[in-house]
Amino acid sequence: MKRTEIARIFADMEHFDGQDVTVCGWTRTIRDMKNFGFIELNDGSCFKSIQVVFEEGSLENYKEIAKQNVGAALIVQGKVVLTPQAKQPLEIKAASIQVEGPSAPEYPLQKKRHGVEFLRTVAHLRPRTNLFSAAFRVRSVAAFSIHEFFQNRGFVYVHTPIITASDCEGAGEMFRVTTLDPENAPRLENGQIDYSQDFFGKPASLTVSGQLNAENFAMAFGNVYTFGPTFRAENSNTQRHAAEFWMIEPEMAFCDLAGDMDVAEDMIKYVIRTVLERCPQEMDFFNSFVDKGLLERLQHVASADFGRVTYTEAVEILKQHNDKFDFKVEWGTDLQTEHERFLTEQVYKRPVFVTDYPKEIKAFYMRLNDDGKTVAATDCLVPGIGEIIGGSQREERLDVLEARIQELGMNPQDYWWYLDLRRYGSCKHAGFGLGFERMVMYLTGISNIRDVLPHPRTVGSADF
Amino acid sequence: MKRTEIARIFADMEHFDGQDVTVCGWTRTIRDMKNFGFIELNDGSCFKSIQVVFEEGSLENYKEIAKQNVGAALIVQGKVVLTPQAKQPLEIKAASIQVEGPSAPEYPLQKKRHGVEFLRTVAHLRPRTNLFSAAFRVRSVAAFSIHEFFQNRGFVYVHTPIITASDCEGAGEMFRVTTLDPENAPRLENGQIDYSQDFFGKPASLTVSGQLNAENFAMAFGNVYTFGPTFRAENSNTQRHAAEFWMIEPEMAFCDLAGDMDVAEDMIKYVIRTVLERCPQEMDFFNSFVDKGLLERLQHVASADFGRVTYTEAVEILKQHNDKFDFKVEWGTDLQTEHERFLTEQVYKRPVFVTDYPKEIKAFYMRLNDDGKTVAATDCLVPGIGEIIGGSQREERLDVLEARIQELGMNPQDYWWYLDLRRYGSCKHAGFGLGFERMVMYLTGISNIRDVLPHPRTVGSADF
Repeated sequence: MKRTEIARIFADMEHFDGQDVTVCGWTRTIRDMKNFGFIELNDGSCFKSIQVVFEEGSLENYKEIAKQNVGAALIVQGKVVLTPQAKQPLEIKAASIQVEGPSAPEYPLQKKRHGVEFLRTVAHLRPRTNLFSAAFRVRSVAAFSIHEFFQNRGFVYVHTPIITASDCEGAGEMFRVTTLDPENAPRLENGQIDYSQDFFGKPASLTVSGQLNAENFAMAFGNVYTFGPTFRAENSNTQRHAAEFWMIEPEMAFCDLAGDMDVAEDMIKYVIRTVLERCPQEMDFFNSFVDKGLLERLQHVASADFGRVTYTEAVEILKQHNDKFDFKVEWGTDLQTEHERFLTEQVYKRPVFVTDYPKEIKAFYMRLNDDGKTVAATDCLVPGIGEIIGGSQREERLDVLEARIQELGMNPQDYWWYLDLRRYGSCKHAGFGLGFERMVMYLTGISNIRDVLPHPRTVGSADF
Repeated sequence: MKRTEIARIFADMEHFDGQDVTVCGWTRTIRDMKNFGFIELNDGSCFKSIQVVFEEGSLENYKEIAKQNVGAALIVQGKVVLTPQAKQPLEIKAASIQVEGPSAPEYPLQKKRHGVEFLRTVAHLRPRTNLFSAAFRVRSVAAFSIHEFFQNRGFVYVHTPIITASDCEGAGEMFRVTTLDPENAPRLENGQIDYSQDFFGKPASLTVSGQLNAENFAMAFGNVYTFGPTFRAENSNTQRHAAEFWMIEPEMAFCDLAGDMDVAEDMIKYVIRTVLERCPQEMDFFNSFVDKGLLERLQHVASADFGRVTYTEAVEILKQHNDKFDFKVEWGTDLQTEHERFLTEQVYKRPVFVTDYPKEIKAFYMRLNDDGKTVAATDCLVPGIGEIIGGSQREERLDVLEARIQELGMNPQDYWWYLDLRRYGSCKHAGFGLGFERMVMYLTGISNIRDVLPHPRTVGSADF
């Protein structure tokens, strides 16, 4: 038996017309019309199922097949026939059907619409539904397109570490990683835990960002990017937060904030265009069943020039509309999602980079502007979601960076290697971070992060 | 200033001949010949450095430049001149040189060969050396080529979870992940830790394999693969073990062990060919300075048909040479590296798949063969290293799998969702795991896993 994937048949219908093929897949529906029947068979190679027609006259196990449940795995051998006058473009007339694995009547995914809440309880089965089949194929294509984008530009992919012993990334609460027996951890004489006996000889955590490590590599390769999992131990049970999620963090030497934004804009456009091109059926599905304006919005973003505005200018604009906001805007406050969406949706009607935020609301490593008050940071805001990317030019001046570390009460010794980069051939450089799940949500219109993660980890939940 | 990457100049020398360019990079060497000098400038865009010639007559800051230390970041503007009679194919005649960031005299990477042990203590700087520049570019190209290989075949990339609450993958010791305060963890009345107050409401760990999760997706998409970090908390301080490493785990529905081996063989060949093609300078470097037989060996593997032999046949062959081995071989024992290398290097003189191992030495999910004694497992052995891939056809029969789980004293309840896959449309399927670092070691000839990991995590070491 040589298996033919259903995607290949749909991709080259003329070629397969009249050909004998063997397809292997799972029944989405099965209809018994007494002496003939129809099966919608899906093999996961593409979004669409293929229609199989089976007849009592030509199938000796007709009765066995006719009583199969939804979800059964079948091996179908038969002839491809184009059906230009029918709803589906072709069908397979079965010469033989073999049950590879039956499905039980209590199969949780019956032929009806299930709520996403229920489907999260069967995360091992939900990729067999249209919604999740589309979501996770788009996720895969988007991930690859990000690799393509950076590799085609000569960026080096760096696997930055997941376990970190430096508690100093400062981007949120961290998970502890340990091999000590929690019931009976070794103690020092003063009663404290003896971390010298832990696996790494000191306390360790799960990373919240690969950026500082990526900078090490940018100072050697020029242009690098990360793409890996990151973690937040925050007790926030929202639609947009997960404890484990994937991030892309490019880092570019000899690059300033303007160059940083250029790359971010090009990347977003590349990912959108690639997904629209390679996943047309999935994107049509999302546009029809999840978010009616999706395709129009994405096509607009892919072709629009992104706006650029300083934080100070943005605050001036927003203050004129403070009556519309729950949180009133004034210089020095962080922008909330309501403000971000107002800017990108109402004022600019396209994506916009806000730049040069007050240093107090941004991270220590961002480059201090000449005004002494703001840093060369940028957030990219997109219609329908708000912030999708955060980036900055990094502080490359040793004395300024050391002063900032002191000012924030952090310990410069914890950053000895990061400071070394400023001692030996320091240079202007910049980078940004894209939360991958947020990008997939944006691409699909799916509003809950749990539904774009294959097996989501959130507060109180690490099933499967 | 529009920066030109050095890789572009080398890639299109005729085009750049006579052109004015601006290049930005770091000095690898600098030689002052009194009124002119030479700089080897490397910008990380390619392995090679470019030669910059600077003259006192045409450079007003000649003295400043001549006294720069190794590692300084420079911005060089000048004309490209082909030098067909010289050692290097071209050079840049500097019209201006600007010091972007000086380097200190104590810069650890001086112009001499440093040992890899020393370089591990400066992991933030070592990618600036030839060895690590080559290693980490090959790593990046190999990673991308794996994505290419699977995406071109329609495989869906799945991000399987890093944090897992199922303690049941059974592939080694695990790191605990927690947000409980270790100094003062909440306790139940009986004195045990109260994990209901931990982040996930129960004990959690770092994954040792994404396979079981990948199977969920293979039963929907047919062909899927993972590529992500995995963890082992084993206290083994060897050249081949790290606590954190990356794995590739494809999983294929309607695929048996023979098909599994076909994909593994094609993948290895694709990665080797891609790296040889895209990293010729790096591979020449490894062949000259790390492992003299490297190129020949890789070219052989990329073109040879891999052998296939059952474990039982392999044991018969090896037993005839038991006098050569520290560990004597007999049926039922696991093969050691010495046996694996003997088979692939002496007997087959090419890569070889060993199949159908005794069930006692393999994992619970591998498919039981009709003999009742062996399972449909395979290890792929390659000359120079031994095992590089382990795979198997998975047990798709619910009753056989449940019996095996019981037999091993494991709890079937822990596997409810994995068993569900056998209840609803089960099918023949197979997959394998490739340890990515082992592949990079094989590609580069580098013998210590610490030297192919950007920031290695091993027993007692999680620096940077």
